[in-house]
Amino acid sequence: MVTVLKPGVTEEQIENLCNWFSTRGLDVHISRGHYQTIIGLIGDTKKIDTELLESLEIVEAVKTISEPFKNANRKFHPDDTVIDINGVKIGGGNFALIAGPCSVESEEQIIEVAEKVKAAGADILRGGAFKPRTSPYDFQGLKDEGIKLLLKAKQVTGLPIITEIMNANHLSLFDDVDIIQVGARNMQNFDLLKELGHTKKPILLKRGLANNLKEFLMSAEYIMAGGNENIILCERGIRTFETYTRNTLDISAVPMLHELSHLPVVVDPSHSGGMSRLVKPLSLSAAAAGADGLMIEVHNDPKNALCDGAQSLTPEQFKDVADKVRKVYEVSR
Amino acid sequence: MVTVLKPGVTEEQIENLCNWFSTRGLDVHISRGHYQTIIGLIGDTKKIDTELLESLEIVEAVKTISEPFKNANRKFHPDDTVIDINGVKIGGGNFALIAGPCSVESEEQIIEVAEKVKAAGADILRGGAFKPRTSPYDFQGLKDEGIKLLLKAKQVTGLPIITEIMNANHLSLFDDVDIIQVGARNMQNFDLLKELGHTKKPILLKRGLANNLKEFLMSAEYIMAGGNENIILCERGIRTFETYTRNTLDISAVPMLHELSHLPVVVDPSHSGGMSRLVKPLSLSAAAAGADGLMIEVHNDPKNALCDGAQSLTPEQFKDVADKVRKVYEVSR
Amino acid sequence: MVTVLKPGVTEEQIENLCNWFSTRGLDVHISRGHYQTIIGLIGDTKKIDTELLESLEIVEAVKTISEPFKNANRKFHPDDTVIDINGVKIGGGNFALIAGPCSVESEEQIIEVAEKVKAAGADILRGGAFKPRTSPYDFQGLKDEGIKLLLKAKQVTGLPIITEIMNANHLSLFDDVDIIQVGARNMQNFDLLKELGHTKKPILLKRGLANNLKEFLMSAEYIMAGGNENIILCERGIRTFETYTRNTLDISAVPMLHELSHLPVVVDPSHSGGMSRLVKPLSLSAAAAGADGLMIEVHNDPKNALCDGAQSLTPEQFKDVADKVRKVYEVSR
Amino acid sequence: MVTVLKPGVTEEQIENLCNWFSTRGLDVHISRGHYQTIIGLIGDTKKIDTELLESLEIVEAVKTISEPFKNANRKFHPDDTVIDINGVKIGGGNFALIAGPCSVESEEQIIEVAEKVKAAGADILRGGAFKPRTSPYDFQGLKDEGIKLLLKAKQVTGLPIITEIMNANHLSLFDDVDIIQVGARNMQNFDLLKELGHTKKPILLKRGLANNLKEFLMSAEYIMAGGNENIILCERGIRTFETYTRNTLDISAVPMLHELSHLPVVVDPSHSGGMSRLVKPLSLSAAAAGADGLMIEVHNDPKNALCDGAQSLTPEQFKDVADKVRKVYEVSR
Repeated sequence: MVTVLKPGVTEEQIENLCNWFSTRGLDVHISRGHYQTIIGLIGDTKKIDTELLESLEIVEAVKTISEPFKNANRKFHPDDTVIDINGVKIGGGNFALIAGPCSVESEEQIIEVAEKVKAAGADILRGGAFKPRTSPYDFQGLKDEGIKLLLKAKQVTGLPIITEIMNANHLSLFDDVDIIQVGARNMQNFDLLKELGHTKKPILLKRGLANNLKEFLMSAEYIMAGGNENIILCERGIRTFETYTRNTLDISAVPMLHELSHLPVVVDPSHSGGMSRLVKPLSLSAAAAGADGLMIEVHNDPKNALCDGAQSLTPEQFKDVADKVRKVYEVSR
Repeated sequence: MVTVLKPGVTEEQIENLCNWFSTRGLDVHISRGHYQTIIGLIGDTKKIDTELLESLEIVEAVKTISEPFKNANRKFHPDDTVIDINGVKIGGGNFALIAGPCSVESEEQIIEVAEKVKAAGADILRGGAFKPRTSPYDFQGLKDEGIKLLLKAKQVTGLPIITEIMNANHLSLFDDVDIIQVGARNMQNFDLLKELGHTKKPILLKRGLANNLKEFLMSAEYIMAGGNENIILCERGIRTFETYTRNTLDISAVPMLHELSHLPVVVDPSHSGGMSRLVKPLSLSAAAAGADGLMIEVHNDPKNALCDGAQSLTPEQFKDVADKVRKVYEVSR
Repeated sequence: MVTVLKPGVTEEQIENLCNWFSTRGLDVHISRGHYQTIIGLIGDTKKIDTELLESLEIVEAVKTISEPFKNANRKFHPDDTVIDINGVKIGGGNFALIAGPCSVESEEQIIEVAEKVKAAGADILRGGAFKPRTSPYDFQGLKDEGIKLLLKAKQVTGLPIITEIMNANHLSLFDDVDIIQVGARNMQNFDLLKELGHTKKPILLKRGLANNLKEFLMSAEYIMAGGNENIILCERGIRTFETYTRNTLDISAVPMLHELSHLPVVVDPSHSGGMSRLVKPLSLSAAAAGADGLMIEVHNDPKNALCDGAQSLTPEQFKDVADKVRKVYEVSR
Repeated sequence: MVTVLKPGVTEEQIENLCNWFSTRGLDVHISRGHYQTIIGLIGDTKKIDTELLESLEIVEAVKTISEPFKNANRKFHPDDTVIDINGVKIGGGNFALIAGPCSVESEEQIIEVAEKVKAAGADILRGGAFKPRTSPYDFQGLKDEGIKLLLKAKQVTGLPIITEIMNANHLSLFDDVDIIQVGARNMQNFDLLKELGHTKKPILLKRGLANNLKEFLMSAEYIMAGGNENIILCERGIRTFETYTRNTLDISAVPMLHELSHLPVVVDPSHSGGMSRLVKPLSLSAAAAGADGLMIEVHNDPKNALCDGAQSLTPEQFKDVADKVRKVYEVSR
């Protein structure tokens, strides 16, 4: 951390500040320039409130140097992390397709969709059991019953399953779920993240609508700090002024996250655009940008889906996307 | 809800669509214009997925008319809600000042601050016990111990207290807390909101960083749908491209929320700006815009605060703000 | 346009409003529902100030139906527009690569870069002569001298050239320029757009940093309304809260613009990300999303470039990108 | 400027980099820490492309210290600038009210409005002659005829006048205009700014919808660099994800601009909110935050205004706002 002092600061003021740093266990390194003095700080600078420091009258600016995430940081872990779910791999050159309905609605529905997406090339089955909805009056999911139906679909098709958790108290219901999803709205539900850090389950962590990449990686860090390093990052669009699409897919996040972190990165083209006709171009662009996988909503009957039918593909549309996506992934490497 | 069909749609297609609406229990009202046909829908249109409808090939546009929030809506509840906490009133012409440290740090600290902010004109004491922090390595609050210290400060000063909840499992710890705060990051933690709906405690609900006013009111609706109508809305800045300030205080939200809802609206000028020197101008502007109160961070020793010292006022600075704010509130009415 | 009235509006109020519409030459179509009355308006509704209408006390909501752009609208022009520049085609299945330095610096530099990008597969040469810079103290370009050097490079290599205009008074300098670029900051410099509408030159119009797709197409409409239909739209990133990248490439804009308009859409991956190492993944993702071309900054000596060296590729890096981009474009179609 | 090198950089690499700085005329100051080396740079660092520097393999981070604006910077000009227009003062404790219609429509209209806003307390008359409109099909203003009508209103009432320029070629038409307005869309029309720098006219510069405060001040710097220091900054709302209001008034910009710059700051509450009923609360909040003035749209017949009637006050409403605003300004100081 570097603290730049204002011109005209006295020696006594500098000394006071350095003493204050010392009481916080930091080594101080002073560089006196022609016009300004710069204080370099060495040690555990996390103990310093940089905004407070910046607000001191004698301080011109404070510049932090190192990224605050450690376990998720590629600097300290140069090789790609590969998540292995019963033989299905994500990351490090392994591309995985996650597909299924927004909500689990019935045994027939989930088994039919599971069989069709498997035939079309999906590696993992998704399906919502607990549904976060903006309105309390909207369908909230089949809950534990939904998880049971997913497990049946897993048994029938052999596909690993992923579903979203909204409450750490439900954790025991997820014992046989293969990947636990944390939704965008819970990306900074720190108590939930801490609980998930004490499991060994792979976690798919979605980026919050208004969270930057640093905050996203800090939330991964919350889980990893508890000992669970099986994290899959998921870009799903951010909130911007543009309203033609539901959210704005931040495609640059894919290469940036790969640079900053060793964790695999998948993209959700269904929620990003909010329209089924955007799923194909966004899927192809994500594969071209180097994503390690995609999570796509597929429904056997989108017009009658209980939730988010507008962004769901039919199984036939999904097959077309899946085939092209794998080709684009190959030629882009 | 109004559905506008594309030009050239056939009678058969219109009939099919109207049947589909009927199976969902809606009355249909068709207006045939020169170029386009418009279908008005009457009944519980919440059962319709508008985005799906919009995605149909024969549909040009779907226009919803009524706001999706009911209990929070001023239309159905024209009079201002007044929240009464042991005689301290917020809303309907009653202005309240909430003040105290970001974090409770020790008995001495919280009692000293409590006494000073009371003397300076505060009506309610704030103090963080459970702290949501972006980094898992930052101070996470004194937790249940912090609540006990707040209760001591309440006993000593008589000030009602407010503190943040992060986990519904902690609810029993809040039995003697006067107002429960839901932080910006948990504004869409729907399971937590539902639990709070089953209490009778006043809830101060902070707006999420990327949430629009409709989503904000829908989260209030989650609590109200459970039977708890004691909600205080809190604007605390939104995330924009501007980085000179930590967040951008959306001052227009104050009059807009008053128009849309009968619930009281307070402003947090400390988190909005992230700098102590912005607290005064933002406080005055909030009072001028008609806010029903302010929540301000005050610390006896900002330079050594464990958290967010940069945005804390000293008790002396707070007194100056409190005095001016009340004057501005009066002349602005 | 549909105007929804509030419940409880009187017949007299409805009649007054309908008379007001009639004086503006509109046909009125009234639908009386159980609770609310809806007025459909037919005719040239552009004469109505919708925001004023919305602000009337008896009006609940106003819903516009048709897009305000006409010439740029795919509805009225279903086939893709193909821009032909001396045999180089953009749009309608024709993919074009535009490459060259941010700024023209010298004859040697621009000719060397031109020859190298041509050899690497570029179809068109770019180079800045008039440079819009945030600071008045930064290099502002070689101006008319820069255009002369570009014309030399065109003569030597045969590549058509594109360069930016900042002032309609300079138009005569662009007589031999093949495509005139309008920069993001001038996207709503309406006087400049009008002047360009009176030429026949192809115009590459960049999207403004904070402009939505409707405003973008309305700016194209300004040029087209003057009679010049040779417009190439260019997505170059929008401003969001995310600061890891200079701007956020709105990749969804590519398929959305193709849906809304018949005009070709190219992407500028250099300015979007602001970093040379993002150019390749963003270029591939743009081609996968269906872009009709790319505009990429290439410099023979990025470290010593007078402007924007950080985002420039070397000619060798450009060749690698160009080769892969064409493959991705093919497999994505 | 401070350049932080990555761990493990060799002495030779450091030497090469320092030589590169030296060729650019900078003094180099090396601080070797335990883990990292930091290079301080003294001299005219504007010659360094910081993004290029950041992109070098051996560089961890680059931190700039000083603000890039000079003439507009309060550091070098601690006293408030006061703009004096025929005795009407703005800034340095002088509060001015600018009022008038969005567009000049006729002689009767502008004179009637001018007389009424003067009687209600306005100091300066505004009125649009050249109108920037998103659509080429919307009313574009009376142009030079509009300016003549404004000058008549000035003659009749004695009020100084302000109107917007869209094209430097029109400058001669503004000879008798008292303040020239640069609209938000032209904030980075650098050629226009340069031309205005060569006049001595007071310029009211509006902030662009997506421009941060630094860019805003850099645009002021463009004018000041030409010799014209009579700049009034105008905050008029920024573009965010929130759509309940047309734009989001960035109220924090008022105190922040006062801290960064000595130039007066006025607020436009009419365009910020886009609704007449928001003008009063936003005006009061701006005065409370320390704005040096307000620019408010007032029309004698808002329902029939040719442009932006939705956000215009009647003269009676304006009088109420004017009276309260001055009281709030006084008690907030």
